[in-house]
Amino acid sequence: MKWVYSFGSLICEGDASHRNLLGGKGANLAEMARIGLPVPPGFTISTEVCSYYYDNGHAYPEALTSQVEAALKQIEAETGRSFANPDNPLLLSVRSGARASMPGMMDTVLNLGLNDEVAAGLANASGDARFAYDSYRRFIQMYGDVVLDVDHGLFEDLLEDMKMRLNVFQDTDLGAEDLQALVAQYLQLVEDETGNPFPQDPMTQLWGAVGAVFASWMNQRAITYRRLNDIPAEWGTAVNVQAMVFGNLGDDCATGVAFTRDPATGAKIFYGEYLINAQGEDVVAGIRTPQPLTKAARLAAGSTEPSLEEVMPDVFAELDRVRGVLEAHYRDMQDLEFTIQQNKLYMLQTRNGKRTAEAALNIAVDMAEEGLITTSEAVLKVDAEALDQLLHPTLDPNAEKHVLVRGLPASPGAANGEICLTADKAEKLAADGKRVILVRLETSPEDIHGMHAAAGILTARGGMTSHAAVVARGMGRPCVSGAGELRIDSNEGKVYLGNTTYTEGDIITLDGSTGEVYAGTVATVQPELSGAFATLMGWADAERRMRVRANAETPLDAKTAREFGAEGIGLCRTEHMFFDTDRIVAMREMIMAADTAGRTAALDKLLPYQRQDFAELFTIMAGLPVTIRLLDPPLHEFLPHGEAELAEVAASAGIPLEAARARMLRLEESNPMLGHRGCRLAITYPEICAMQARAIFEAASEVAAKEQPVLPEIMVPLAGTSREIAICRKIIEDVAADVAEKTGITIAYQIGTMVELPRAALCADELAQQAEFFSFGTNDLTQTTLGISRDDAGNFMEAYQDQNIYPTDPFVSIDVDGVGKLVEMGAAGGRKVRGDIKLGICGEHGGDPKSVAFCETVGLDYVSCSPFRVPIARLAAAQAHIRQKADS
Amino acid sequence: MKWVYSFGSLICEGDASHRNLLGGKGANLAEMARIGLPVPPGFTISTEVCSYYYDNGHAYPEALTSQVEAALKQIEAETGRSFANPDNPLLLSVRSGARASMPGMMDTVLNLGLNDEVAAGLANASGDARFAYDSYRRFIQMYGDVVLDVDHGLFEDLLEDMKMRLNVFQDTDLGAEDLQALVAQYLQLVEDETGNPFPQDPMTQLWGAVGAVFASWMNQRAITYRRLNDIPAEWGTAVNVQAMVFGNLGDDCATGVAFTRDPATGAKIFYGEYLINAQGEDVVAGIRTPQPLTKAARLAAGSTEPSLEEVMPDVFAELDRVRGVLEAHYRDMQDLEFTIQQNKLYMLQTRNGKRTAEAALNIAVDMAEEGLITTSEAVLKVDAEALDQLLHPTLDPNAEKHVLVRGLPASPGAANGEICLTADKAEKLAADGKRVILVRLETSPEDIHGMHAAAGILTARGGMTSHAAVVARGMGRPCVSGAGELRIDSNEGKVYLGNTTYTEGDIITLDGSTGEVYAGTVATVQPELSGAFATLMGWADAERRMRVRANAETPLDAKTAREFGAEGIGLCRTEHMFFDTDRIVAMREMIMAADTAGRTAALDKLLPYQRQDFAELFTIMAGLPVTIRLLDPPLHEFLPHGEAELAEVAASAGIPLEAARARMLRLEESNPMLGHRGCRLAITYPEICAMQARAIFEAASEVAAKEQPVLPEIMVPLAGTSREIAICRKIIEDVAADVAEKTGITIAYQIGTMVELPRAALCADELAQQAEFFSFGTNDLTQTTLGISRDDAGNFMEAYQDQNIYPTDPFVSIDVDGVGKLVEMGAAGGRKVRGDIKLGICGEHGGDPKSVAFCETVGLDYVSCSPFRVPIARLAAAQAHIRQKADS
Repeated sequence: MKWVYSFGSLICEGDASHRNLLGGKGANLAEMARIGLPVPPGFTISTEVCSYYYDNGHAYPEALTSQVEAALKQIEAETGRSFANPDNPLLLSVRSGARASMPGMMDTVLNLGLNDEVAAGLANASGDARFAYDSYRRFIQMYGDVVLDVDHGLFEDLLEDMKMRLNVFQDTDLGAEDLQALVAQYLQLVEDETGNPFPQDPMTQLWGAVGAVFASWMNQRAITYRRLNDIPAEWGTAVNVQAMVFGNLGDDCATGVAFTRDPATGAKIFYGEYLINAQGEDVVAGIRTPQPLTKAARLAAGSTEPSLEEVMPDVFAELDRVRGVLEAHYRDMQDLEFTIQQNKLYMLQTRNGKRTAEAALNIAVDMAEEGLITTSEAVLKVDAEALDQLLHPTLDPNAEKHVLVRGLPASPGAANGEICLTADKAEKLAADGKRVILVRLETSPEDIHGMHAAAGILTARGGMTSHAAVVARGMGRPCVSGAGELRIDSNEGKVYLGNTTYTEGDIITLDGSTGEVYAGTVATVQPELSGAFATLMGWADAERRMRVRANAETPLDAKTAREFGAEGIGLCRTEHMFFDTDRIVAMREMIMAADTAGRTAALDKLLPYQRQDFAELFTIMAGLPVTIRLLDPPLHEFLPHGEAELAEVAASAGIPLEAARARMLRLEESNPMLGHRGCRLAITYPEICAMQARAIFEAASEVAAKEQPVLPEIMVPLAGTSREIAICRKIIEDVAADVAEKTGITIAYQIGTMVELPRAALCADELAQQAEFFSFGTNDLTQTTLGISRDDAGNFMEAYQDQNIYPTDPFVSIDVDGVGKLVEMGAAGGRKVRGDIKLGICGEHGGDPKSVAFCETVGLDYVSCSPFRVPIARLAAAQAHIRQKADS
Repeated sequence: MKWVYSFGSLICEGDASHRNLLGGKGANLAEMARIGLPVPPGFTISTEVCSYYYDNGHAYPEALTSQVEAALKQIEAETGRSFANPDNPLLLSVRSGARASMPGMMDTVLNLGLNDEVAAGLANASGDARFAYDSYRRFIQMYGDVVLDVDHGLFEDLLEDMKMRLNVFQDTDLGAEDLQALVAQYLQLVEDETGNPFPQDPMTQLWGAVGAVFASWMNQRAITYRRLNDIPAEWGTAVNVQAMVFGNLGDDCATGVAFTRDPATGAKIFYGEYLINAQGEDVVAGIRTPQPLTKAARLAAGSTEPSLEEVMPDVFAELDRVRGVLEAHYRDMQDLEFTIQQNKLYMLQTRNGKRTAEAALNIAVDMAEEGLITTSEAVLKVDAEALDQLLHPTLDPNAEKHVLVRGLPASPGAANGEICLTADKAEKLAADGKRVILVRLETSPEDIHGMHAAAGILTARGGMTSHAAVVARGMGRPCVSGAGELRIDSNEGKVYLGNTTYTEGDIITLDGSTGEVYAGTVATVQPELSGAFATLMGWADAERRMRVRANAETPLDAKTAREFGAEGIGLCRTEHMFFDTDRIVAMREMIMAADTAGRTAALDKLLPYQRQDFAELFTIMAGLPVTIRLLDPPLHEFLPHGEAELAEVAASAGIPLEAARARMLRLEESNPMLGHRGCRLAITYPEICAMQARAIFEAASEVAAKEQPVLPEIMVPLAGTSREIAICRKIIEDVAADVAEKTGITIAYQIGTMVELPRAALCADELAQQAEFFSFGTNDLTQTTLGISRDDAGNFMEAYQDQNIYPTDPFVSIDVDGVGKLVEMGAAGGRKVRGDIKLGICGEHGGDPKSVAFCETVGLDYVSCSPFRVPIARLAAAQAHIRQKADS
């Protein structure tokens, strides 16, 4: 079994394709060596050793020692130096290198191989004692810190003490003897702190560093990072051991980092920084200020310190050549690390550069237009999820701002407006043309009209999946939730934001992408959806198989959806239409009614509203399909919470308060998620279903009468059996026939169902006998399949992610093994009975790129998501289809 | 297509195997004719006509008319009489006859074919005008009632008026002319009520009666009956048309009903009644009192009226011969109808006789011992569900009783005791040796110790699946729930039962099988589990493949379970152990604790209790497997509801009331069913899992140290991933190792999981890597798969059953198509990875015969149910295995 892979100009056992085995850094070092770029020789201990290490109680495979020794010999052969040999010492760097770049792990130990004797030898060999002891003291500090777990502040203290004693300010002001004394102090410090002398044996040092890399794979920071970035713990890390090169051997030495293009904007300029006579750590440490690589950048920054281009024109030219070689080779923007030792360039790392969404977009489009990559590749190069940054207004980066409080970044985008404490007032002010920030302790379905009217939403309570957060994301409203330092005094109309008191009507600004709330008006910048964005989306649409629809119920949402390229409405949640001030009264009358006649009378009042809603949607969607879901939530969601409001409801329904309270108590449920909702409402109160069907068909006829096409799809929610759909179908068809007879206009329509119960997926063949389409409601399907209430998951979901039970929140990305299996079974069952059944997904997974990719594998016909995520879904669908084609 | 099947001595087209096609009655008439018994000739219109009728808008198949006419000719040929011919009239009976016997449908029209002219002819032909007009007036009344929907009371009124006018008391006192006059009044009544003259055309009469039978298939009573008895609407009914024979042509005529054995006790005696000179309807009408068939029965009843055996010894002998023939032929106890016309016996019906559970048991055992059937057949003959009647104490049938109020029969059995209003007091009184009836508005988990201590439970609120009902059934305690006329005044210690006021300590009796509550002590009778019961259960056990375990957590339950033949504990719900007065305090301290240390301190107090619980269970179960489920319910279930109690909790936990309230609020959940429970508790609070594991292993060691075998199986609840089980497994194994080290005793044990989430079943292969056994928790699996909260289903489940969406309550019998598919997938997935994985089911389905049969098809290893249902499960498992073998 091969555990160790050498790289260098003489022998090179890996290449870029070995990323899983060698980690990103190791694979790219081998690749650079392989294509002839100047890379100090070294070897990589593979990720399989890491897995072995954790599977076998922190033991190494037996053959590892001999393989490491052989690879070390190989470095010695290429460098002509000798490890642990004071006369001509080989020093090493040891770096971790996982498959994906991973901050939080042990990073680097430099200058490994130094001990008292070797340091003395290095001083002799280099003729530079200061360099030798500076390297030694750096090594002791790094090794002490990352391998031996000695607080690095203690080393800093000793260094500062010495500088103070000698009355100098810069490390560089310390001489060789000072440093030698400091080394002695450091060695003593390590012994004091660890109880053992600092290891003098270079091989012991090497194995110590290797062990520290593997151990750091499981430290808390690394675990957290992996969870946040969906990196499986099984991947493991590799360890890269490489001959040291020195950027700190004099003024013909330097070290630096660079991007082949601007990572912030994507502009095609050589972007980077360097330091003369420095080791790599100095560039990031911030003790000295690095200088720009190019003259143009220096001028732009107004700096007088020379650029690398000016100070070492030949080496710069070589570096610029390497830049071109690497971009052409990797066909992507690269992030480079290099060291110049005595005017010779060494490449220490290359990797695909991280970039902003804007840069990603511009680079992908530019590279395709340069002919470097195809348009398909360009589509694949942009992280669909990151597009979200570009689709919402953002704070003007140049604006001054003062943070009042912080909460959770619950729904992206920035907004400013006047503070408003109730949904009703928000709606009124918005109708008067005001920009409003709705500020609430928390929100409930009663607030939806106010949330819709508001420019942004701020709540004191609730997490990332609270009502406010979920609804705001669906609506594309910026939202900051759970701002702990927000208090509200509704009686006085006062809001306390940290230490500042505001009154309703005062202006604040919030940024839902960061969770920050600012004083006054901070200017916002509208997203730019033309240029590279439009070009790339055009390429994506050309590659896409799945359709993308939007979840929308208001005219504004529907218009936004179309602007973002939605090809229909995949989910119109009719209940949201009942919360408006003038409708909720009739809705509550309906709920309080004692019998069918009472319900019908109240429903008759709702009918005109619903009809108008649907007519507007049909008009906006202009013949694109509009999937309308029948009333879904349990009726108690429409009832008020306060006693005073209940009295109002009783009065308006004309029943005693006691009767209203009794009715409310009877509607209360232990588990509303699994309660009297969905089509269960239509079965027990068929008149509700009939009213909604009538509103749909009357609206459709009205629009069709104006020669405008309409395509309604009526969706039965929460069905578990075909019989439920059949009963609803009968009601709907009867109404359709009646409306057709009265209007003389026959509307083509479909009746389908939402597959959101495990039973629906398991019995999909049965359901398809009654359903012309399935829309997988994976929000609820996840709740039932996993037995996790989204509202209650807060108490354990973080522990579940930390402990790798659900590495990704299953409400964000679909749980492929569980919920996904049901979606597959549902699709297969549906197709078995009805070959042309239309299959889609609605709910938040429809806007999540990973879930969209899953939908492609199942061959769904469309995904539906909130309007603001439509471009994300379009891009994700294109990427999924390209990858699917490549795989097959 | 053949729609009509003749039977008689000349031609007989059906037999008993045609039950689905001809209905039970029709098939058995054909069968009797076929084996040479005297059956009046006739024909059956098949159930397929009924299906056709409903599938085609109440139209008949075209060929039906000619087939009926041909079959009618056949009756005429055999009887030598002629339909609609006044000179020698053939009269007909028309009866419905579904596949299963079905009250609620149209029953019978007799004497069909009579009109003014035929009645006059019949008077001539029979020489008995009174008989002719009596027959005619009966026919008009029957036909008017069941076919023409004329209120039968109106006919009775006319009859009574006439008797009053003539000053006579018996119908038989009316003469031919009186009856002729009555006929005229009846005809006028029908015309007045329906607006049409009574149909004089016999063929019109026949088709009217046939149509009425088919129509009655869909009347509300029939629909309700089908729902209650799980009869699919698709089955349809047949119509039997048969030549009339007359038991009312003189004193050499009679009619009667009989059972081949005593249907109440199963005793092998000829049991039945007859009336001289009467039509069949008179036997059931109760106008004349029927007499016993046999002399022995007459003597036993102390009657002086002669028995059939005495008055018509020859005919009786023939009937007794027929009794033997039929029992030998059908190999089951038969329920017969017969008519004797002028000393000739005619058989009008035979069917398997309905019987009490006791009779079923005795008949099955007797017949097997007589060699009439095999022991396997005997096992199949007893309805497993009906055994329930025999397993609980019942009210002494001879005791006097006075009903106070009625509620729902929530848990079977009878009990008496003193009224007690709180669980704590109930526990205390029971400990003092008192018999207690716990009377509550409703019960909650806090009451469990009191429910356990009580002899019976009575609640004012709650349905058949309320907390009280479910827990009481599980414990085998009689329970009457939802007694609307029960009011409780806790302050005064008063209970109002209807109009009677009781004080705590007063004695009442309740019958959980009927829902009735009685004044004072009504004597109860203990069930008899020896004799035929023991014999049959022995045969059943010999036929059974699946093991039967019990759900039990207390020593009493465990003992009961073993007495009823349980072969282990399949579900020990540890949370029930925490509600005892002295434990709940520590439990609440644990919940209120701010950190792990606080929780551990409180758990240390619970440890000795749990250890003792388990030690007792292990001792009682004596080496049989004991499956212990880790803590399952959300923690808020252990917190009190009242403010005063919360203050106590705060005080005992040593935290401010505000902090306790805050903690309680934080624990509240929107959907507790899908919340922070099951193994999610063990993952977030590993110390709870560790305490329980320690209690298990310390108890097991303690018992094992006494040389007694122990077999603990530790069950991880609500797992959806293998990782959850792995985390719990690690905690458990560590504790096991620690206890083994400290005690020097190593206990063999298994770790498995409850499969109660759809994801667990879908990913069973993954879970089986960590689980040595699966127990399908189909209660929760039904809730999640169907998305139906058991607690909230009340608002729609009845409508769902009425509308045939879920014909059977899926919480009573497993939903085979949905939940069953998951069980199958789970079993297959588990076996794929772990060939010898042990598979069982716990929860209420484990005691439901239909669900047990399903478990047999999946090949589960055991079912587990509440102790009182263990015999039911044993019998059901045997029946399922016998049927399974027969099918394969």
